[in-house]
Amino acid sequence: MSLVYKRVALIGMGLIAGSMALAMRRGGLAGEIVGTARSAETRRIAAEIGLVDRVAETAAEAVRGADLVVLAVPVGAMDQIAAEIGPHLEPGVTVTDVGSVKRAVIEAVGPKLPAGVHFIPGHPLAGTEHSGPRAGFAELFDNRWCLLVPVEGTDPAATARLRTLWEGMGAHVEEMDADHHDLVLAVTSHVPHLIAYTMVGVADDLRRVTDSEVIKYSAAGFRDFTRIAASDPTMWRDVFLTNKEATLEILGRFTEELFALQRAIRTGQGEQLFDYFTHTRAIRRGIIEAGQDTDAPDFGRGKARS
Amino acid sequence: MSLVYKRVALIGMGLIAGSMALAMRRGGLAGEIVGTARSAETRRIAAEIGLVDRVAETAAEAVRGADLVVLAVPVGAMDQIAAEIGPHLEPGVTVTDVGSVKRAVIEAVGPKLPAGVHFIPGHPLAGTEHSGPRAGFAELFDNRWCLLVPVEGTDPAATARLRTLWEGMGAHVEEMDADHHDLVLAVTSHVPHLIAYTMVGVADDLRRVTDSEVIKYSAAGFRDFTRIAASDPTMWRDVFLTNKEATLEILGRFTEELFALQRAIRTGQGEQLFDYFTHTRAIRRGIIEAGQDTDAPDFGRGKARS
Repeated sequence: MSLVYKRVALIGMGLIAGSMALAMRRGGLAGEIVGTARSAETRRIAAEIGLVDRVAETAAEAVRGADLVVLAVPVGAMDQIAAEIGPHLEPGVTVTDVGSVKRAVIEAVGPKLPAGVHFIPGHPLAGTEHSGPRAGFAELFDNRWCLLVPVEGTDPAATARLRTLWEGMGAHVEEMDADHHDLVLAVTSHVPHLIAYTMVGVADDLRRVTDSEVIKYSAAGFRDFTRIAASDPTMWRDVFLTNKEATLEILGRFTEELFALQRAIRTGQGEQLFDYFTHTRAIRRGIIEAGQDTDAPDFGRGKARS
Repeated sequence: MSLVYKRVALIGMGLIAGSMALAMRRGGLAGEIVGTARSAETRRIAAEIGLVDRVAETAAEAVRGADLVVLAVPVGAMDQIAAEIGPHLEPGVTVTDVGSVKRAVIEAVGPKLPAGVHFIPGHPLAGTEHSGPRAGFAELFDNRWCLLVPVEGTDPAATARLRTLWEGMGAHVEEMDADHHDLVLAVTSHVPHLIAYTMVGVADDLRRVTDSEVIKYSAAGFRDFTRIAASDPTMWRDVFLTNKEATLEILGRFTEELFALQRAIRTGQGEQLFDYFTHTRAIRRGIIEAGQDTDAPDFGRGKARS
C-alpha cells in the first residue's frame, strides 16, 4: 500500500481501465483516479457505480495535473486521443497504453506527444469476454503478465515507476521490443482469436440446417471457441488492421499446417495424425507447469474466483 | 437408486468407462460392474484403485453373463472387439458404445453381433483433457448430453432402459440419426479439435524463434486451444479417419470463411471484420442461455467442481 502516482487519468473506461481503477484502489497505488470516455453513457455509469474518483467530460480535462495517463481505448482510436491530449500534457508525465498491438500504437501516438513526456507503451495480457464500464474487477491482473515496450530514449526511472504500478496491481512485468511483441501476440492471441471467430461463424451458417443443436451440444469442444469469439468487436477489428503483417504471416503458417492435416485425413494417414496429436499434448503440459492454467477437469465449467 | 442392469461389462477403462463405473456406483444403477482393457497396466491400475467390481483378463470373459456391454475403446478398435465378443454374447443383452463417430461404428460393429442382441450406439458429450484409468470421476456426465443412435429395428424397450441408465448417471438423453450425429459433431467438436491441434502445432514451430514465450503468454487466448488439443491422440486419430466426409465438408467451409476474413485484413475492410465479430457474440450468448457454460469471468481459471 504505497502511492506510486498522485493522479492517474484513465482515457477510456472499459474492462481494462475499470479493472485498473479497482486494482489501483485495492493497492492504494494512486492518490486520485480520474476517468473519461467518449460515450456519455459510459461516463454516466462510471459515475453511478463510483468506478473512479472523478469523471471528466473530455480527455483534455482528464489529463490536467495527472502524472500518469493511461490510453485504454481501441488501438484505432489512439492517434485521435493522442492529438487531443498532446497540448495539455505537463512535462514529466508518463503516458502509457494498454493496446494489444504495439508498433502501430507507437507510430500513432509517439509523434503527437510533446518533449518531456515519458511514453512507455504497455500491454496487460488479461481479459474476459465482457466489456464496458461494469466489466472490470480488481483481480483481473493477478498472476497475469504485463508487457512494457519502452521506446528509444525512455527514462529508465519512469519505466521502473510504471513497473511498480503494474506489480502493485498483481501483474508480472516483462519488457520487450515492439516488433517482437507483435509477433508473439499474433501467435498466442491474435490468430487464435481470428480462428475462433471463423469457427463460430461457420457453425452459425449451419444453424439453419441443424437448428440450435450447435449450441446445445457445444460442450464437445466448440464452447471454448465461442468464449474467445465473444470479445469486443471494435478492439479486435483494430488489432487485425494494425497487426496485419504478423497476423497474415502466422495465418499463412496455420493454413499450411491445416492443409497438411486435411490431406492426411483425406488419404488416411493415421500415423501422421497420431504423431501430430501426441506432440501437441506436451505443449499443454508446459502451460500448466508455467502456472498459466490448471489441470483441473473442466466438466461443469463452474469457475471460482480463486 | 434403482438397479437398471444386473451386470455391466465395460470394454476399455479410460476416462469415459471409468467415469461410467463411478457414476453407476453413485446411482446404484448396476448390480456388478466388470471391466477389462487390452493393456495389462490399465487392468492392474483399475484393480488397484477398485475402479470396477471385477477386472476381467479378456473382453470375451468380461461379457459373460452381462446384460449390458459398453464398448469404450477408440473407434478404430471397435470392429476387432466386436468380432472378439460376438460369439460370447447372450440373447437379450444390450450392446452400446461411447465413440465420437456413429456411422463408422455401426458399420464396424453391427454385422458382428449375433441375432437377439440389442445394439444401441451412444455418445456422451463429455470429456476432459485427461485419459486413462485414473482420469474418471462420477460427475463427468452431470448436466451433459448423451446422444443415442438406435439402429433400424431396435427394440424401444431396450433403448428406454439404456436411456434410464444414462439419466441415472446425470446426463440428458436425446436420440438422433447416425449421419446427422456425425455432421453435428463435426461442427461442434471434430473440426474445432483439428483447428486447435493445428494452432498449437504452429505455435510449437515458432518456439524455436520465441523460446518459451508462447507458453508464458498463453493466457491471451492460446491457452484455450491447448486444453482441447491435449486430448487422447488415438481417439482423435480414429475420429478423423472415421468421420472423414463430414470433417472435410466442415473444414472446407471453415477455410472458405477464414480466407474471406484474411482478405478483409489484407485489404483493410474494417467494417466487414466488425460486423463478423459482432455477429459471433450473439452465439456465445445462446450457449450461456442453454446452460452449457457460465458467463463468469475466467481470469484465474480456478475451476470449482460444482
